[in-house]
Amino acid sequence: MDTSEKIGKIDIPKKAIYRLSIYYRCLQKLKANEVETVSSTTLAKAAGVKSAQLRKDLAYFGQFGTRGLGYPVDILLSTIRDTLGREHLQPVILVGAGNLGSALLRYHGFEKEGFEVVAAFDANPDAARSRGVLLAVYPDSDLESFIGENSVKLAILCVPVEFAQAVVNRLVAAGIQGILNFSPIVLEVTPDVTVNNVDLALELEHLSYFIR
Amino acid sequence: MDTSEKIGKIDIPKKAIYRLSIYYRCLQKLKANEVETVSSTTLAKAAGVKSAQLRKDLAYFGQFGTRGLGYPVDILLSTIRDTLGREHLQPVILVGAGNLGSALLRYHGFEKEGFEVVAAFDANPDAARSRGVLLAVYPDSDLESFIGENSVKLAILCVPVEFAQAVVNRLVAAGIQGILNFSPIVLEVTPDVTVNNVDLALELEHLSYFIR
Repeated sequence: MDTSEKIGKIDIPKKAIYRLSIYYRCLQKLKANEVETVSSTTLAKAAGVKSAQLRKDLAYFGQFGTRGLGYPVDILLSTIRDTLGREHLQPVILVGAGNLGSALLRYHGFEKEGFEVVAAFDANPDAARSRGVLLAVYPDSDLESFIGENSVKLAILCVPVEFAQAVVNRLVAAGIQGILNFSPIVLEVTPDVTVNNVDLALELEHLSYFIR
Repeated sequence: MDTSEKIGKIDIPKKAIYRLSIYYRCLQKLKANEVETVSSTTLAKAAGVKSAQLRKDLAYFGQFGTRGLGYPVDILLSTIRDTLGREHLQPVILVGAGNLGSALLRYHGFEKEGFEVVAAFDANPDAARSRGVLLAVYPDSDLESFIGENSVKLAILCVPVEFAQAVVNRLVAAGIQGILNFSPIVLEVTPDVTVNNVDLALELEHLSYFIR
């Protein structure tokens, strides 16, 4: 079997992509500490996965580690970086600059990972600006033209739940392909669009089940 | 087999608990619209899962739906509520009131789902207050006494990544059993503690892989 064919995006499971990002961060720390090779056991422990899982994930890239010597940190880093496409800064828009949306805009935690929030949109831009948002806030009627003119593919969605699906339909029609959704709703999109849900209340509910 | 034994927390898989929360929300909407019974197909579609998955999840509670009539909304609601323990307002503390932490405190999205953030802790409470946090912000040296005196079991962790593990060790020693972790680090905890990770940059990375 030609392993080079396995590097395509189709062949790596969706869950494995998350783990690759985590391995990448661990490897960056190892490199910063001038570590040249790492065993599967050590890397798996740092990433919080089982060794067997790690070996299976890295096997998507073909044969890698040298038995007894471990994985070469530098080569593994560049292979994962190429796969994840981390070399490009991705422009992101944020839609819905209410309490959570404007909080996320003040957070600035995305930039250091290679994402730039280039604009925010809200039905009431003046209200958003009054919440201390320093980024340009446009009326949501400008969504389609902005997405088209700036070739934006990623959007963070923080609109009230009752507007979420309608806004998503507009985003997808305008060319958005990836949505980070903070609204507690199951969004319907076409198969070529990826939605990742971040539902903070759901996470707390889940935790509270396990602490009883 | 006695199905009543299957309602215990041990027998429902961790992933299924997330889905139960989502079914619960969908059922609440149905009840608000005065719908009395719902088919597995309809409920599954609203929750964004396959019908077979829904039927499997609800089978943890024993025999439920009546063939051809669907599930009784009221009974299913109360059964899931009892299972998730949603009837109690859970006190939560937030540790690390920096950019993201103070943003979450301003968000107020947890309360409507039954969680109250009762206090925030920071190494520098004055700086946190200057970020507009209105909640009581205590120095982190007060963590142990506050957790003990108020029987807090849930914590939201937003401290800088280099302090995260040390803070978690203190939280767990003081009695915290569930942690919603926003630091991009794999935390090590004992098996009786549950950690759910919310990593916003990781979610964006994951999306950007699929939009290329």
